[in-house]
Amino acid sequence: MAKIKVGIVGGTGYTGVELLRLLANHPDVVLQVITSRSESGLPVKDLFPNLRDHLNIEFSEPDVSTLKNCDLVFFATPNGIAMKMVPELIEAGVKVIDLAADFRIKDIKVWEQWYGMEHTCPDYVEQAVYGLPEVNREAIRQANLIANPGCYPTAVQLGFLPLIENKLLNTDFLVADCKSGVSGAGRGANVGTLLCESSESFKAYAVPGHRHLPEISQGLDIFNDSANNGNVDLTFVPHLVPMIRGIQATLYGKIGYGKIRHGKINSGSVSLTEIQSLFEQRYANEPFVDVLPAGSHPETRTVKGSNMCRIAVHQPQGSDTIVVLSVIDNLVKGAAGQAVQNMNIAFDLDENAGLNIVPLMP
Amino acid sequence: MAKIKVGIVGGTGYTGVELLRLLANHPDVVLQVITSRSESGLPVKDLFPNLRDHLNIEFSEPDVSTLKNCDLVFFATPNGIAMKMVPELIEAGVKVIDLAADFRIKDIKVWEQWYGMEHTCPDYVEQAVYGLPEVNREAIRQANLIANPGCYPTAVQLGFLPLIENKLLNTDFLVADCKSGVSGAGRGANVGTLLCESSESFKAYAVPGHRHLPEISQGLDIFNDSANNGNVDLTFVPHLVPMIRGIQATLYGKIGYGKIRHGKINSGSVSLTEIQSLFEQRYANEPFVDVLPAGSHPETRTVKGSNMCRIAVHQPQGSDTIVVLSVIDNLVKGAAGQAVQNMNIAFDLDENAGLNIVPLMP
Amino acid sequence: MAKIKVGIVGGTGYTGVELLRLLANHPDVVLQVITSRSESGLPVKDLFPNLRDHLNIEFSEPDVSTLKNCDLVFFATPNGIAMKMVPELIEAGVKVIDLAADFRIKDIKVWEQWYGMEHTCPDYVEQAVYGLPEVNREAIRQANLIANPGCYPTAVQLGFLPLIENKLLNTDFLVADCKSGVSGAGRGANVGTLLCESSESFKAYAVPGHRHLPEISQGLDIFNDSANNGNVDLTFVPHLVPMIRGIQATLYGKIGYGKIRHGKINSGSVSLTEIQSLFEQRYANEPFVDVLPAGSHPETRTVKGSNMCRIAVHQPQGSDTIVVLSVIDNLVKGAAGQAVQNMNIAFDLDENAGLNIVPLMP
Amino acid sequence: MAKIKVGIVGGTGYTGVELLRLLANHPDVVLQVITSRSESGLPVKDLFPNLRDHLNIEFSEPDVSTLKNCDLVFFATPNGIAMKMVPELIEAGVKVIDLAADFRIKDIKVWEQWYGMEHTCPDYVEQAVYGLPEVNREAIRQANLIANPGCYPTAVQLGFLPLIENKLLNTDFLVADCKSGVSGAGRGANVGTLLCESSESFKAYAVPGHRHLPEISQGLDIFNDSANNGNVDLTFVPHLVPMIRGIQATLYGKIGYGKIRHGKINSGSVSLTEIQSLFEQRYANEPFVDVLPAGSHPETRTVKGSNMCRIAVHQPQGSDTIVVLSVIDNLVKGAAGQAVQNMNIAFDLDENAGLNIVPLMP
Repeated sequence: MAKIKVGIVGGTGYTGVELLRLLANHPDVVLQVITSRSESGLPVKDLFPNLRDHLNIEFSEPDVSTLKNCDLVFFATPNGIAMKMVPELIEAGVKVIDLAADFRIKDIKVWEQWYGMEHTCPDYVEQAVYGLPEVNREAIRQANLIANPGCYPTAVQLGFLPLIENKLLNTDFLVADCKSGVSGAGRGANVGTLLCESSESFKAYAVPGHRHLPEISQGLDIFNDSANNGNVDLTFVPHLVPMIRGIQATLYGKIGYGKIRHGKINSGSVSLTEIQSLFEQRYANEPFVDVLPAGSHPETRTVKGSNMCRIAVHQPQGSDTIVVLSVIDNLVKGAAGQAVQNMNIAFDLDENAGLNIVPLMP
Repeated sequence: MAKIKVGIVGGTGYTGVELLRLLANHPDVVLQVITSRSESGLPVKDLFPNLRDHLNIEFSEPDVSTLKNCDLVFFATPNGIAMKMVPELIEAGVKVIDLAADFRIKDIKVWEQWYGMEHTCPDYVEQAVYGLPEVNREAIRQANLIANPGCYPTAVQLGFLPLIENKLLNTDFLVADCKSGVSGAGRGANVGTLLCESSESFKAYAVPGHRHLPEISQGLDIFNDSANNGNVDLTFVPHLVPMIRGIQATLYGKIGYGKIRHGKINSGSVSLTEIQSLFEQRYANEPFVDVLPAGSHPETRTVKGSNMCRIAVHQPQGSDTIVVLSVIDNLVKGAAGQAVQNMNIAFDLDENAGLNIVPLMP
Repeated sequence: MAKIKVGIVGGTGYTGVELLRLLANHPDVVLQVITSRSESGLPVKDLFPNLRDHLNIEFSEPDVSTLKNCDLVFFATPNGIAMKMVPELIEAGVKVIDLAADFRIKDIKVWEQWYGMEHTCPDYVEQAVYGLPEVNREAIRQANLIANPGCYPTAVQLGFLPLIENKLLNTDFLVADCKSGVSGAGRGANVGTLLCESSESFKAYAVPGHRHLPEISQGLDIFNDSANNGNVDLTFVPHLVPMIRGIQATLYGKIGYGKIRHGKINSGSVSLTEIQSLFEQRYANEPFVDVLPAGSHPETRTVKGSNMCRIAVHQPQGSDTIVVLSVIDNLVKGAAGQAVQNMNIAFDLDENAGLNIVPLMP
Repeated sequence: MAKIKVGIVGGTGYTGVELLRLLANHPDVVLQVITSRSESGLPVKDLFPNLRDHLNIEFSEPDVSTLKNCDLVFFATPNGIAMKMVPELIEAGVKVIDLAADFRIKDIKVWEQWYGMEHTCPDYVEQAVYGLPEVNREAIRQANLIANPGCYPTAVQLGFLPLIENKLLNTDFLVADCKSGVSGAGRGANVGTLLCESSESFKAYAVPGHRHLPEISQGLDIFNDSANNGNVDLTFVPHLVPMIRGIQATLYGKIGYGKIRHGKINSGSVSLTEIQSLFEQRYANEPFVDVLPAGSHPETRTVKGSNMCRIAVHQPQGSDTIVVLSVIDNLVKGAAGQAVQNMNIAFDLDENAGLNIVPLMP
């Protein structure tokens, strides 16, 4: 089979270089073009010496006419860039995977409120497929435009999915206490993410509201069949962990389906064994979700550099509270790896192609 | 005034060396004896070179008759050691502050279940004062035996205190998602806390049950007047952060007093402004609790090396969920610093003596 | 071609798990047996969860009769273990690569002095080939017993090699100031390598003498043709860096061949351009040595997880002092990766097989 | 005694906040003014929350007329700022301590070459006293203008001082291999010092030439009485360590006084015991230099937050090479602490005032 001709728009950030790492060894891909307005003309390996001996290509000015020669274009750009170029590419028959947030949220008003700009191609939001393979694999297979999920939304949705799909949780008070390595904040020069400011310290941020909240809520509402059952009520608090890579989502919910305030409480009872079994069945055929044995505590380092999401389920002290622990590498399953997984699905390749990586430990 | 003659039992762990750091510069204290079975005869400064030029004393074998010459003995020992020596010291008129857990939990059966041993002096548990000055200052002033609180319990209780005291939270589903630096695990040689195992990673641990749970619950029940209002229902999940010092407790509760399951729901409404004001008033005279301005996100590094607890209150998205962020240095306000604060109170010194430390930042 | 049947003795340390990571994806290898006295019966993936989905094998008791069925046995054991089993394996026609130090030093007396034990099979030391492919590739191809170099010796020798081979340095005062991540100290439970003891700090260690000194000196003497030119005089100081992986060797020497004290000084002059060119030529065909452009400062993270050694050459202020910067991943090119490279050579495979890894950055 | 009225120009960097930490608890100082062009009007504690409860002052616009009311002004500014304001302040009778480099180098041409700008007040360079108390204490006592030494120069000079003063080293090939925590690079927003770029990695930088080289060389030449004995020949290579604070200088020299190339070699012999004793005597009365017992390996963490320099001396393998290990906290003895020490001397205070800090460990 001919190799897939791939372009990357915006390759100088952490999701960009991670995409390069994964594509450099992908057996079915040829990287045709990588753009960067600021670094145009620079060999990629000069910016990212880890790619010496693996990639001989230069950054070039972004140019739609060149990108049209690709079979697939990844956008690893800041929010608001992809939406300006996507329509023309899609019309030209190029598939697009956007690693930013331009096409993730279906409700344009909600998107515009959280992202603080006007959306320039709402029609494309409608046709875009949300690229969470564990939920939308078949749609991804047919999609021309894939909205690659955010990092927190991936970890949180995969952790809550089996519980909410099966209507086991009271959706009135869900908590997602999330922790991310500093690479989630990007490669921009900011005081707050200097080693001297962010190492040897821990903090919450964006407690009043974070852009990933509406994305997660949209997903959970779909799992919950919210048209019939009402919206879920999620409190999402992200934290910054003094490490480079990794996200852990610690998820809390009470057993008992329904909305307390709406009087539909059904406290029912489900054992931890049943829940463990539910998770194992739900993800039995998923190549990148690993349900750990009951009682486990996943460490983010066990997925470092890989596309795996590892999940463990707990019911502390036999109470009616369920705690789910979900870990991913934010740059892989939370960004570039999931994008490659989506590419593999959309181009009918082995879903594991280029992603068969053993996490680096220690 | 004559200086207070102080002894320390078990000075080779992290709470021990931290106690030494604080006492070395304390104006009203003379350190008479520091014991260590394993390091007897070794100058303290040979084990802890940061104390060179600050402390000229050797570790000695633990010996009650020597300790009896002290005015005050700190126990910085593993659980189960203090209870064997405390009665004799108390009878001899020596005050005791136990930094371990032997005297923290009033219900002996609960203690024995969580700590896996028989308690050898239950009577002393009864007379012991729980050394959280923000709650028990007057009792501490009179106490002979002070049970210094655990690290997580300090951060969690100070964060929940004003809300539960004022019956503002539904106590049916409280969540304390806590994160600690690795020093909380002690100075013992364990694979799990090697740099190569615990840096560049994040994990939850002890989700099925952690010894600090009954201690926290006991405290929250008292705030809640549980005899009248029932026990609180707390889910407590500790996590390990790849840094040396610092604890953050992220606390979640729903506004509305009462137990949902008991039908006493009062969803009432309280504004964030009111809650902020409540916290500010509650802690207005506390030298070691700092309520940050509304909208703040405390960082653990802002208390590094100091006895301060910094707290910020949030109500995300204007919902009925309250999020409290509470940070301490686990070795100071969470251990040795609080012990010195308790000593200062018990000996009628300036509560701030020896504790007027500017946190080290960066 | 039939796959190579491989056994590993001692797979629970960091070089062991790294070997497993590399072999798990090696196209020409089947892992038949991995031994561990302490973990016998435990699935490897339970100790190293990064290997879940990549390796289904259990640790077993070390047993020479089982190991004899292998084509190749790696020893990832403490020093002094391999020498007890190697003769029997070699006699049985099994090739052996020892990642420990048992066969690295030709002078048995020197070995016995530095390693503090009697050598049980000096004959095998004689036939062992020192597995530095950049020097001994042809001998490795024929070897039955390969002594895989130490981590510091690899970085130092590759950095000094072109200079000493070409007699450009005064060998009377060579300095190798080396810095290693903490994984070099192994996975044993020691207080000194706890996160709380070794992070946020830097120190030299073993300044009076480190076991890698005789190994490095032996190598440099060979490059120097010491029979004719006398032994080199090297000062080697290792340091501990608060990170997991990576070694940097900063090497210092003065231009001018000969021994100052022996009156053979030839201060000659060589330009940086000539030296740069010399390094580039020397390593032009080496798959795992990357000479950076003049003026570069290699970072250890640019080789994280890969078998590459990156080298840069400097002549500060145009003086007659040459500074060479040499970085490797201590667990890969400094241990397991070099062992796989040696295996590839010894079994006539593509030297790059299983080692085509893009370093993880960030 | 009336308190010393102190001003700080440029208080938003790491040396600035460290100065604030030390002065906040200094018994003899009142902080009158702290300037920052960018943060004028902002309470200091809003930028540096560690100072909440310790400092109630706002940043103000730099203004010489206000600064003239101070007894002492510290400059914690980028290079080139102090020289513009110093003459007017000195004329007004204000003492000045410059923590930047404007007055460190006596040879104006050398300064201008390394710092890339014209010096605007060479006369003041001449009268400035280089603030290394261990060398210039008496001059500091009389000084109006003190050039506070750089961080690397402090660690290196204190390590070489006794050896060169006593003409024990061959000054023809001195090596200072230095390692610094990232705070040495300042609080500016740069990609290179982001946590994701500088943690988990190690590198050399500025090998072709670093501004601290002429400063160190100037000092060593003075120790060496270079007018009679020729200039020392130093190779200085700085490295970046993935930690916040701390510098280690590893210093190498050969026993034997004289310049090899000039034929004045005297290889003489000195024992390690003699050298140890020499160091102990030289620093016996120094409050902030601690000579460790023979065989020690100082860790940078043993001086974290304190003004101490700890030094250990080695003679590896009994050769004629001396290795000196010298550690400081780059922000304290390498910057703000030494500035306070200089202030204490210049104002005839207890040299230890405000500096009696126990290093934070762990």
